[in-house]
Amino acid sequence: MSFSISHSAALAKKAARQVANLSSVQKNALLTDIANSMLEQTSQILAANEIDLRDGKDNGLDAAMLDRLSLSPERIKDIANAVLEIAAQADPVGSISNIQRMPSGIQVGKMRIPLGVIAMIYESRPNVTIDAAALCLKAGNAVILRGGKEALHSNLALAESIKLALQKHGLDPAAVVVVPDTDRKVMNELMTLNQYVDLIIPRGGEGLIRFVSENSRIPVIQHFKGVCHLYVDNAADETKALKLLENGKTQRTSACNSLETLLVHKDIAASFLSKAATLLAEHAVKVHACERSISYFQGATAATEEDWHAEYLALEIAIRVVDDFDQAIEHIEDYGSGHTEVIATQDYSNAQAFIRRINSAVVMTNASSRFSDGGQLGLGAEIGISTSKLHAYGPMGAESLTTEKFIVMGEGEVRA
Amino acid sequence: MSFSISHSAALAKKAARQVANLSSVQKNALLTDIANSMLEQTSQILAANEIDLRDGKDNGLDAAMLDRLSLSPERIKDIANAVLEIAAQADPVGSISNIQRMPSGIQVGKMRIPLGVIAMIYESRPNVTIDAAALCLKAGNAVILRGGKEALHSNLALAESIKLALQKHGLDPAAVVVVPDTDRKVMNELMTLNQYVDLIIPRGGEGLIRFVSENSRIPVIQHFKGVCHLYVDNAADETKALKLLENGKTQRTSACNSLETLLVHKDIAASFLSKAATLLAEHAVKVHACERSISYFQGATAATEEDWHAEYLALEIAIRVVDDFDQAIEHIEDYGSGHTEVIATQDYSNAQAFIRRINSAVVMTNASSRFSDGGQLGLGAEIGISTSKLHAYGPMGAESLTTEKFIVMGEGEVRA
Repeated sequence: MSFSISHSAALAKKAARQVANLSSVQKNALLTDIANSMLEQTSQILAANEIDLRDGKDNGLDAAMLDRLSLSPERIKDIANAVLEIAAQADPVGSISNIQRMPSGIQVGKMRIPLGVIAMIYESRPNVTIDAAALCLKAGNAVILRGGKEALHSNLALAESIKLALQKHGLDPAAVVVVPDTDRKVMNELMTLNQYVDLIIPRGGEGLIRFVSENSRIPVIQHFKGVCHLYVDNAADETKALKLLENGKTQRTSACNSLETLLVHKDIAASFLSKAATLLAEHAVKVHACERSISYFQGATAATEEDWHAEYLALEIAIRVVDDFDQAIEHIEDYGSGHTEVIATQDYSNAQAFIRRINSAVVMTNASSRFSDGGQLGLGAEIGISTSKLHAYGPMGAESLTTEKFIVMGEGEVRA
Repeated sequence: MSFSISHSAALAKKAARQVANLSSVQKNALLTDIANSMLEQTSQILAANEIDLRDGKDNGLDAAMLDRLSLSPERIKDIANAVLEIAAQADPVGSISNIQRMPSGIQVGKMRIPLGVIAMIYESRPNVTIDAAALCLKAGNAVILRGGKEALHSNLALAESIKLALQKHGLDPAAVVVVPDTDRKVMNELMTLNQYVDLIIPRGGEGLIRFVSENSRIPVIQHFKGVCHLYVDNAADETKALKLLENGKTQRTSACNSLETLLVHKDIAASFLSKAATLLAEHAVKVHACERSISYFQGATAATEEDWHAEYLALEIAIRVVDDFDQAIEHIEDYGSGHTEVIATQDYSNAQAFIRRINSAVVMTNASSRFSDGGQLGLGAEIGISTSKLHAYGPMGAESLTTEKFIVMGEGEVRA
């Protein structure tokens, strides 16, 4: 019997109605049981993960890929705890806001509701399977999870834990579909099922996201690259700015909220760049510098147009001296990816203007770009970071998986 | 010199930065001058409209189409007044909400910002050109307007009024592009320009909307049909319910918020359907009735599966008797278009359950479906009604043309 994605999606849509009507108490009990069920099934999950790891080694996956794929009793416990944290969050569904009486006499407000069916397309991290399922269920949605083929056995074992919990609560197991067929054709068909699926969230490399964006008939949340900027204003506190540079560039280079470009006001350049040079040398950061800054950095290469667009995801940084605040803004507008930008300044007006004028998803004054994630911004778990402005912008938590309907309460009013 | 949509879109993106940074006072002064400029240019606009009307007659447009296309000094005054009303609304851009301090010490909030460049694809009503331009500018966006070829001369004359006002304020005229080439190829190219355009809003027939949705690389706001339901509960106040039926079905049949299907609880059917039959006969409404209701309506035809899906936009209605509240909900879930649904009931719990369980864009208790529009719901002017849940759901005003970014204010905090 072969797997049919359109059949599964139709069943998920039906199950979504049931999930949408669960109370907060029911949803939280379900999430708690998903966590428990995972812990009880630890040995089965690890056995399945063992198969994926063996296949991965046979297929020549590199060490970083194998590490992302690998589960252990501790990692399973961490994933289960993340589910419990999602259970502990406030329920985004059902809140009513802003009820006002209109001149006609009707009362109008808005109520938050689930989106319906969410499809996730992702690569090899098996924890996404559980995180995404938990966030979607919390927001009252059904979910279709299409992970990478490298993690298939692990994902199916995790799916079994979810299914046991759904069954225990008398819920339709079709509410969480883990796609068992990782053939590209199945993914391509999934992207056409706009009669069943309300939103697709791809997570992975730029190629995957671009492919889904360009071929999907279903709305897509795009998370392209993070080319994050730190602008050190002439009124910066240099000590703070150095800390922001160090933390932003070196704490976790592979994260999309790491710094990639440093802009420095010309009036503070001589003083700041000398200190930055020492700091970056200590961390062995490779520097791509503009004409006006290259003399400060031993072994730096001249920055090219590509460097201003680059997401290095490594101990590398592009550095440019700017004439003034406006040129910094312009540089970010021209080369930014809409992810996260930071100004280091003690000047009130420049801080205000930066916040007002830069329209990236996350705009910061005197704080590390590394705070740009759902947990640090207070959303709890995060299902992705949108760099397109439609529907959601920036880190997305459970609320981003809902929408608002209008509610109208009348006493028999009709329109004149 | 031929028109290049990609060149215009690139210029619009550049102009969007300028518009995004205008203050509320500047935007409102600009809108006031667009209204004034239109009034001053009345004779030029009417002359252009005359050409469109003559061509329309030559090309055999029907009377309804010609009426939609036709401008008069009064209609121009009405359109100008609509712009002044948009100017008088609150500015959606710049509001900051929900600033909270995180455990790390940073303060996190959200600030509302423009989307960037909006493209409208619409048919023959020239008022859309001005309404859409005014709403987009109010929300700080640039706009590309691609109207139907029937209205091209009128639209270009209106565009001239807008351009004069933009110039008077020293603003880039590329902020409002009226596409002078209505060839389908230009529209098709527009839908691929996701590097410049942030959102496409098609307004027109289902065919146009479906074509844009399936072919656009840019996010699309979908407004498919409005199959609006009135459910008359067993606890309904029959007098109110009859008024809702009359107003919803007969006040303006061509509107998408008109009623198309009446569902009646079996316990109230005998009493209510007799009265409904008299009322609908008075208005010469053609009835498509289920087996249990057909005997009440003289000359009714038996409702088929198609009738439950039908958007008649005419003096026609589908009628079904349901066993209970749940069957009414199920019918709406199965056949509804996600637009607007109404319950007539005096029962507290049924009213609450209807509002909670029905997830159409607008859900009403004891109020006419005809209230389902931006003006009546308090949004001011409306740019469209979304029946898809992503980004916006239901009538869309200026706020729906914005998004929110995260803002973070720190004192040098870094991530541990």
